[in-house]
Amino acid sequence: MGIDRTKIRWNGWGWAAHKDDLSDREDIWRWLASELSMPALLATPARGFEELSLPPCALSLEDRHSLNRIVGEEHVRGDVYERAFHTLGRSYYDLLRLRAGDLSLAPDVVVYPRGTEEVLAVLKFAAERDIAVIPFGGGTSVVGGVSGVRGAFKKAITVDLSAMDRLIDIDNVSGTATVEAGIAGPALEKALETKGVTLGHTPQSFEFSTLGGWIAHRGAGQGSNRYGRAEDWLIGVKLATPRGLLATGDAPASAVGPQLVDLIVGSEGVFGIVTEATVRVRPQPAVCDYRGYLFRDFESGMAAIRAAMREDIATTMLRLSDADETRFYRSYGNLGRPRTILRRLTDLYLEMRHFDEKACALIAGFEGSRSIAKAARKQFDAVARRHGALALGTRTGERWRQSRFQAPYLRDPMMDRGVGVDTLETAASWSKLGVLYAATRAALETAIQQAVPREDAKGIVMCHVSHSYTDGASLYFTYIFPRTLDGDVVQWKTIKKAATDAIVANGGTVSHHHGVGEDHLPWFAQEKGTLGIDVLRAVKAALDPKGILNPGKLLPD
Amino acid sequence: MGIDRTKIRWNGWGWAAHKDDLSDREDIWRWLASELSMPALLATPARGFEELSLPPCALSLEDRHSLNRIVGEEHVRGDVYERAFHTLGRSYYDLLRLRAGDLSLAPDVVVYPRGTEEVLAVLKFAAERDIAVIPFGGGTSVVGGVSGVRGAFKKAITVDLSAMDRLIDIDNVSGTATVEAGIAGPALEKALETKGVTLGHTPQSFEFSTLGGWIAHRGAGQGSNRYGRAEDWLIGVKLATPRGLLATGDAPASAVGPQLVDLIVGSEGVFGIVTEATVRVRPQPAVCDYRGYLFRDFESGMAAIRAAMREDIATTMLRLSDADETRFYRSYGNLGRPRTILRRLTDLYLEMRHFDEKACALIAGFEGSRSIAKAARKQFDAVARRHGALALGTRTGERWRQSRFQAPYLRDPMMDRGVGVDTLETAASWSKLGVLYAATRAALETAIQQAVPREDAKGIVMCHVSHSYTDGASLYFTYIFPRTLDGDVVQWKTIKKAATDAIVANGGTVSHHHGVGEDHLPWFAQEKGTLGIDVLRAVKAALDPKGILNPGKLLPD
Repeated sequence: MGIDRTKIRWNGWGWAAHKDDLSDREDIWRWLASELSMPALLATPARGFEELSLPPCALSLEDRHSLNRIVGEEHVRGDVYERAFHTLGRSYYDLLRLRAGDLSLAPDVVVYPRGTEEVLAVLKFAAERDIAVIPFGGGTSVVGGVSGVRGAFKKAITVDLSAMDRLIDIDNVSGTATVEAGIAGPALEKALETKGVTLGHTPQSFEFSTLGGWIAHRGAGQGSNRYGRAEDWLIGVKLATPRGLLATGDAPASAVGPQLVDLIVGSEGVFGIVTEATVRVRPQPAVCDYRGYLFRDFESGMAAIRAAMREDIATTMLRLSDADETRFYRSYGNLGRPRTILRRLTDLYLEMRHFDEKACALIAGFEGSRSIAKAARKQFDAVARRHGALALGTRTGERWRQSRFQAPYLRDPMMDRGVGVDTLETAASWSKLGVLYAATRAALETAIQQAVPREDAKGIVMCHVSHSYTDGASLYFTYIFPRTLDGDVVQWKTIKKAATDAIVANGGTVSHHHGVGEDHLPWFAQEKGTLGIDVLRAVKAALDPKGILNPGKLLPD
Repeated sequence: MGIDRTKIRWNGWGWAAHKDDLSDREDIWRWLASELSMPALLATPARGFEELSLPPCALSLEDRHSLNRIVGEEHVRGDVYERAFHTLGRSYYDLLRLRAGDLSLAPDVVVYPRGTEEVLAVLKFAAERDIAVIPFGGGTSVVGGVSGVRGAFKKAITVDLSAMDRLIDIDNVSGTATVEAGIAGPALEKALETKGVTLGHTPQSFEFSTLGGWIAHRGAGQGSNRYGRAEDWLIGVKLATPRGLLATGDAPASAVGPQLVDLIVGSEGVFGIVTEATVRVRPQPAVCDYRGYLFRDFESGMAAIRAAMREDIATTMLRLSDADETRFYRSYGNLGRPRTILRRLTDLYLEMRHFDEKACALIAGFEGSRSIAKAARKQFDAVARRHGALALGTRTGERWRQSRFQAPYLRDPMMDRGVGVDTLETAASWSKLGVLYAATRAALETAIQQAVPREDAKGIVMCHVSHSYTDGASLYFTYIFPRTLDGDVVQWKTIKKAATDAIVANGGTVSHHHGVGEDHLPWFAQEKGTLGIDVLRAVKAALDPKGILNPGKLLPD
C-alpha cells in the first residue's frame, strides 16, 4: 500500500534513511567554495521537525466525519507529519519554505482513497462544502505542482493517491496494462516485470513519483527516445471530476474528434484526478547498453544528435553535457582520486586529439532486443565518428546509469552549506536551439551575478541536451549559486524570471517535462495566448464548476 | 491557385476528364451481377447538371457587398456550379442526394479567401450577421464533413481554402515546413520535393484533399506506419476563429499544460478554420519497396502484423486483405485475362502449399534510406515466413501502388448500374480485433440481406487491416450491394447503423481516420460520454460563441 510517508523526508529529497555521502567530504566543499569564488561555505541547516507549527485545521468536525465515512477514518490523516509532508512539493522555492519551517500552506487533512469511487465521492463532498482539493502523487513536483494553495477557499484537503497502486490488468495480446494511478515507479516496474514487460518511464524522480503524476504533468523519462513521453505511452484514463467520471476510449488511434485523453495529459489536477490509466508496455529489453562519447564541442555533439534522430536510429537516450557540465562532473568525479599514470596518459591522449576545455560528454543508451540495440549502437557509433567524437566505452555509461536517480540527493547537503541549486528546462526546434542555449545561459549567469551575496562571488551554470526529436530537442540547465541568506526567495525569483523570460523571448517552451505548477504560471498566458487560456478555462468550468481542484496551478485566475 | 473546381466532378469522384475504364467491360458487369445474385444490373444514371435547381441565395445584397470587400468580388462565387459543387461531400449518402439532383443544402455563396487575415475577417462578419460558415478543403469527406447544413441559421457560406496553397517556409535544420492549409496533396508534395523532403501523407483522397482537411478530420495516410497520422506530424497551427486567431506553439514537445494543437486535430471545423500548419517533414525516401505476401488465413496475417509492430520493424504500410477481399480482387483482376499456363501452374503450386479459399493477401511497403528499407524488408520477410506466408514479390506491390488512388473512381460507374458501394472503418486493440471483425462483418451481411431489393440477392462484404500499431490496428470494410432504388437512403442508413452499432458494442472506435461529420454523429456521445461532450461543447462556446461554424457536424446539438 504505497510508500509510507514517514520514510520519506518531509523537507528534502528522498528516503529519510539515505546516507549523505558528502557530509565528511571537506575536499568537495572546499572545491565548491572556490568554484563559487566564496572564501568559505556557511552552515545553513534547516529547521527541525520539532520546531514546526501548523495552522489550525479549518475543517469542521462534521467535515471530518463525512470524510471518515467516505474513505474510512484510518485514511484521513491530520497529524503534523502528514500535513507537513503534503504542504509543498520539491521545487527549490518549496525547499526554501520548508527548510524555514513555513507550513502556512499545509492542507487541513490528507485523505488516502482506495479507488475511483472513493475519489469521486471525495470530490463530490468537497464541491458541496467548498473545500479546495489538491491531488498528490509522489509529491516530487519541482515547479510547485502540489502546493497546498487554497485560492478563494477557506478549507483544503490533499488527496494522496499512493494507496491506489494496483496493477488492474495486463493485456499481453495488445501489449497494454491498466494500472491505478497512485503507483510509484519501482512498484509499477516490478509488477510489470513479473509479466515480462516494461513501461520504461524513468524520470529522475522515478523512485517516488507516480503514474498519475507523470500523466498530470506531461512528463518524459530519461529513456523517452525509446519509450516515449506520457502522451505517447498513454492510451486511456479514468478521470474523477467534481461532475463525475470521465473515461476516455482505448483505441490505438481514432478520428472521432479531438481525443479527450490529450486534454488530460498535462492538466495538472485542475480538471480532475487521474485514478486509472491504460498504457502501452513493451517487452523487457534484452539489452541495456549505455556508453559514453566525447565530442570536441557542444555544436558537434548537437549536430550528431540531430543526425541520429533524422536517420531514425533507435536510441533510448542521448544526453549531451555542455563543456561546463562536462568539466564540472569531471572535476567533481576526480576529487580525492589520485592522479594515476593512466589518467595522465588519458589527458595527454585527449590533448593530442585536440579535445580541450570545450569538450562535451554524451551518454547514449540503447535498449531493446539484442539485434535492435546492437544495430542502433553501430549506427550511432558511425554518426558520432562522423562528427569527430571519441567513443569512451560502457564504463562511463554504466556509471551514469547506476547514479541516474541520485542527483536530487545532492541539493539538501548543498542547501545546508549556503549553496543553492536549481534546474530548469525547455525545448525548441533545432534551428532555434543554439540561440536559445546561449541566451538562457547568459540570462542565468547575469542574474546570478546580480543576486550573489558577495560582489566577487559567482555561480556555476551548466546544461545538457536531455531529450531529442527529429525536429528539436530539450535543454536542461543546472545552476549553482551562493545563497543570499537574507533574501533567498527574491534571489531565486530573480534568477528564475531572468532565465524564463529569455526562454520565452527565444522561442523555447517554458517547460519540456517539469510542468507548469505555480512556478511557471506567470508565463503560461504568453505561451498559450489569451484565446488558449479561455479554452482551457472553459474546459475547467465544464468539469470543475466551482474551481475546487488544485487552485493556483497551471491556469491563471 | 488551387484546383479549378470545374475540373472536378460535382456529383461524383475526381477529375471530370477521368476515363471510365469499366464502361465497355460487360464481362465485369455480368460477373458483378452474378456475385450479387442479381439477374442483371440496372441502368441508374445520375441526373444531369442542366436539370438542377438551387434554392435562392439567402444573402442580402449588403452581405454580398461586405464579402466582396473582404475577399474581393472575384473570390465570392454564387454560380450554380460552385454552389452545387460545395453542397455536399463525397459520402455514399452525399452521392445519393447529389445524383438525385437534391441541392437543398447548397451554401448561399462560396468564398475563396487568400490568407489568414481574410478568413478571420470572414468569420467576424459571419458571426455579426448570423451566417453559418462551412469550412471546405478538398470536399472529399466520406462522412458528411462539409455538407451545407446551416443549423439554426438562415444563411450559409462555404469557405473554400483552396486558394491558400502556398508553402510559407521550409526549415531544413529542424526538418519542418510551414504551409497554408488549403494546399492539396500533389501540390504540397511537389513543393516539398523541390526541397528534398516529403510529408508522406497519402490518404486515398490524396489528389484532392488538403492539408487542412487532413488535420481537421484527424486523418491517416496509407503510409502512416512510417509517416504518422495527422496528430503525429502536426507541430503547430494557426486557427482562425470567430473570436480571433489561436496560434499554437511549435516546440518539439512541451509540458506546458494540455497542448492546444491536440484539441484542433480532429475538430472538423467546429472550433475554427485551420489556415496554416507547421509539420514535420522527412527526407525523400531513397527506396519505396512495395511487395506482396500470401497468408494462409486472416488470423495468421494479423498475427504477423502484430509481431512486426511489436518488434519495431520499420514498415511504411502493412495492408492485409481478408479472404473475401483477396478473392474478390483476384477474380476481378483475372476477368478477361486468358488462363495461361503460368497462372495454372501458380494455382497448382498454391494448392500444393495448402493455400485455399481462406488465403489472404498482404501488401507491405518499406520506405526510407536504402539500409533502413532493406533491413525492414528482411525483418518482415522473416516474420511473414514464421507465420507461414508466401512472398509474392514486388509486382503485386507495385500494382497496388500504381492504383492506390484509383479505387474511389469505381463507385460512380457502379452507382450508374444499380450497385451501391460504401466503406467504413474502425480500430481497436489487438485483443478485441478478432471479435470486432467477426461482429462487424456479420452485422453488415445481415443488414444488407435485409435491405436488398430481391429476396435472393446478396451483398459482398470485404475487409482489410489498413493501419497498425503496437497495441492494435484498424479494420477497413468495403461493402457492395444491389441498390433498393425506391429506398436508397433508408437502405444505406440501415446498413450503416447495423455496422456502427456492432462496432461500438465490440469496443471499436467509430472511425479510425474518416472522422465524424454528420454520418457518425449519432454515435459520438456513446464514444465520448456526456461529460466528454460537455467539455467539447465548452471549447466550442469559448471559440465560436454563436455556433456559426460547421453546424450539424461532430458535436450533437
